[in-house]
Amino acid sequence: MPELRKDPIIGRWVIISTERGKRPSEFERARPAPKSGFCPFCPGHEDKTPPEILGYRKDNGAPDTGGWHVRVVPNKYPALKVEGNLDRVGDGVYDRMNGIGAHEVVIESPGHKDSLSTIPIEQFEEILWSYRDRIIDLKKDDRLRYVLIFKNHGEAAGATLEHSHSQIIALPIIPKRVAEELDGAKAYYEYKERCIFCDIIRQEIMQASRVVAENSDFIAITPYAPKSPFEVWILPKQHEANFENCQKHHYENLSVFFSEILKRMDKVLNFPPYNFILHTAPIRNGDLNFYHWHFELMPKLTRVAGFEWGSGFYINPTSPEEAAKFLREAKI
Amino acid sequence: MPELRKDPIIGRWVIISTERGKRPSEFERARPAPKSGFCPFCPGHEDKTPPEILGYRKDNGAPDTGGWHVRVVPNKYPALKVEGNLDRVGDGVYDRMNGIGAHEVVIESPGHKDSLSTIPIEQFEEILWSYRDRIIDLKKDDRLRYVLIFKNHGEAAGATLEHSHSQIIALPIIPKRVAEELDGAKAYYEYKERCIFCDIIRQEIMQASRVVAENSDFIAITPYAPKSPFEVWILPKQHEANFENCQKHHYENLSVFFSEILKRMDKVLNFPPYNFILHTAPIRNGDLNFYHWHFELMPKLTRVAGFEWGSGFYINPTSPEEAAKFLREAKI
Repeated sequence: MPELRKDPIIGRWVIISTERGKRPSEFERARPAPKSGFCPFCPGHEDKTPPEILGYRKDNGAPDTGGWHVRVVPNKYPALKVEGNLDRVGDGVYDRMNGIGAHEVVIESPGHKDSLSTIPIEQFEEILWSYRDRIIDLKKDDRLRYVLIFKNHGEAAGATLEHSHSQIIALPIIPKRVAEELDGAKAYYEYKERCIFCDIIRQEIMQASRVVAENSDFIAITPYAPKSPFEVWILPKQHEANFENCQKHHYENLSVFFSEILKRMDKVLNFPPYNFILHTAPIRNGDLNFYHWHFELMPKLTRVAGFEWGSGFYINPTSPEEAAKFLREAKI
Repeated sequence: MPELRKDPIIGRWVIISTERGKRPSEFERARPAPKSGFCPFCPGHEDKTPPEILGYRKDNGAPDTGGWHVRVVPNKYPALKVEGNLDRVGDGVYDRMNGIGAHEVVIESPGHKDSLSTIPIEQFEEILWSYRDRIIDLKKDDRLRYVLIFKNHGEAAGATLEHSHSQIIALPIIPKRVAEELDGAKAYYEYKERCIFCDIIRQEIMQASRVVAENSDFIAITPYAPKSPFEVWILPKQHEANFENCQKHHYENLSVFFSEILKRMDKVLNFPPYNFILHTAPIRNGDLNFYHWHFELMPKLTRVAGFEWGSGFYINPTSPEEAAKFLREAKI
């Protein structure tokens, strides 16, 4: 059983995924992702993944058969397990609990070579709907407190399979970075009685220098204090804490917008590897007036990592104003 | 002038080092470190670095000449500048100040191919003394609040020059991760009236399962909730908040101990790239009864980074107990 452990000093939880246990020799030198001809995510190989949790099919065909355009399946090597109890226990100064949760894979398209920046808008929209549908479903599990949705694109950004996919991890704790955002946003709200993200959007529109793109419902900005070059945040202009509570037309609009941002990034940075993370409110907190869902998108351009991990301190060689200008002016 | 900017939501400061300004094309694909024959850190090339700040020489020779065994010089491409005022200003919801501070390089040995795990113990001790001497000196600058000392070893861990060196960054702010440690340790002290690090050391000695090595003055453990596999902390057994306030024999003892830990890591993980960071108390806070200096050492074994950066959430495939066992039992 994987274990969730809490750092007693800074309060960060980590998963010790013992069943993925790696012996030292397995770490020796970062290995290239297996590039064998066989892909378990391709159509026709539906029996090579654990049974599907969700499948969108035009013909309403049976689960784990072909004809799908988006498929959500359990991760074959899950970092967390669905069965069991949390069993929170102390051990002297330490705290741990069982690694209860869900770890799922969203297979974003049947095409092995497809990527988010090139697939049709309708396909992109389906992926957003699958995120939403999974959050709604995972909310029903009382043990869970947060649904983390993210994508690693490209080997350098941590993708181990080439076929385009994102991941969903449902957790019995709130990840530290999200907890910090919630705390910071709440403190601001208590002082100003305004959502800090709404204030940021207003100021960014006024100043314009960090705006990458904008449409009626969404804005993309390079954040004022980015931890990495060309980091981009995509936010809904209208206040909403929970991604899963968007209006239908927002998903339509977001798929067009998100696709455009990825195309701009591909153009300016020559198809970079990247990560994105959906920051949305915890699933047990109801509608929050101080939080505002958004996507954080980070191209993987620099290699330095250990130092930043350890210090929480970042040196960024590109100003967000400059990055926004390049992205804004890209001819796509 | 570089700029320090604060994230308005989570309060993290980052350096926007505009003078290192990179155009998008410069990021295209992680480039290998330049492996030209010329090394500015080698003896005989003392005029190829900015004028030295500190040099240890057996013969008390002149600065910027040969005969040194450790040399500290300003970084040729500093992320921060020494001259000027902080000029803290607000900009709507945002905060920034001038990037005032010091950015120095410790050239750890004259030998181009030397590494910390192979140099003589006396040489290692000199490096520790240079860290201490620089902290003492930087403390005199009232604008500064923290001295961050770290090392990137190997290209994959972010080293851009092969010749063994560490870096010193003196900052007008306290890095987020250190601030979190200070806050957490303070809260624990207020509740228990004991240093949490002292309590951790006591529990680790009792449980023994995460102890890598121990001598009269130091202990090395794999932390209970490590963010990466084979992460190791080296702590003094006796309470002390400030690295620069150690007794003389502690530096001697630490050099033997630290060298041993690196040898164990080399043995088990086949000479991995790594980062280490000295966590010591801020320079303006006096003696803290709740904080306890230590080194955090992280071999760079996994590639995933962007997701962890963005979520503050870590999945670790190796338990600290297992990692400690491998390191403890290594024949060195």
